[in-house]
Amino acid sequence: MMDTDAGMQLHHVGYVVRDLDAAAAIYSSLGFEVGEPFAIPEQHIVAVTIHAGSGWIELIQPTDPEGPIAAYMAKKGEGVHHVAFQVPDIEAKLAELKAANIQLIDETPRSGAHGWRIAFIHPKACNGVLTELVQVSE
Amino acid sequence: MMDTDAGMQLHHVGYVVRDLDAAAAIYSSLGFEVGEPFAIPEQHIVAVTIHAGSGWIELIQPTDPEGPIAAYMAKKGEGVHHVAFQVPDIEAKLAELKAANIQLIDETPRSGAHGWRIAFIHPKACNGVLTELVQVSE
Repeated sequence: MMDTDAGMQLHHVGYVVRDLDAAAAIYSSLGFEVGEPFAIPEQHIVAVTIHAGSGWIELIQPTDPEGPIAAYMAKKGEGVHHVAFQVPDIEAKLAELKAANIQLIDETPRSGAHGWRIAFIHPKACNGVLTELVQVSE
Repeated sequence: MMDTDAGMQLHHVGYVVRDLDAAAAIYSSLGFEVGEPFAIPEQHIVAVTIHAGSGWIELIQPTDPEGPIAAYMAKKGEGVHHVAFQVPDIEAKLAELKAANIQLIDETPRSGAHGWRIAFIHPKACNGVLTELVQVSE
């Protein structure tokens, strides 16, 4: 396999769900190891992360019916909300994308779950997929 | 990290796109190593797979405007089509899911790209996400 350590590595897929507890029970029954729910108040969500080999699934329930994730679910239904890729240096990656005129939602990283530093690329730049960059601190 | 070797491992995410060559160019510009396009005539698609660390992105363009993937794109637009998890024994996993009354699309595996053996779980059983099981032959 080619060396992709310096590139974009599939890290997690975020699913938006109506009822986090019910969804967690479903993913348990599918054979996943489901973690403990936690809140991210500044994003108006409750979430659980699920180990899936070297990647993760993130189940997200919006807690603010007026927020962007609730609006997304109202329009699209339950399902995949975003796909995240781990990068070694998120500032360098954002600078590279900006230089290539790729449409970003976040030009600078913000805090995500588990102390991850995250930034979103606009779905218009990624064939309709809301794409997240993640830098995991060692 | 817990041992998840026997469980469901995030393997790839399939994106449906209108124009495979244009999408491949976009994912190149995002910094991915994009493979060579190939056809899967029995599924009426052309596709490319993209290395992303230990996982993959699969870009899929339908070639049959009357087929199910074209219908999906007409309804939902471009974006994520399915999420795939690698399992060590796909027959055993399907038997386990069937015993748990989980709604399957495929009760027996079929052939996927790259010699993978694949089977789909119904999105109704997975919070709206069309979920694929993959067994990779060694």
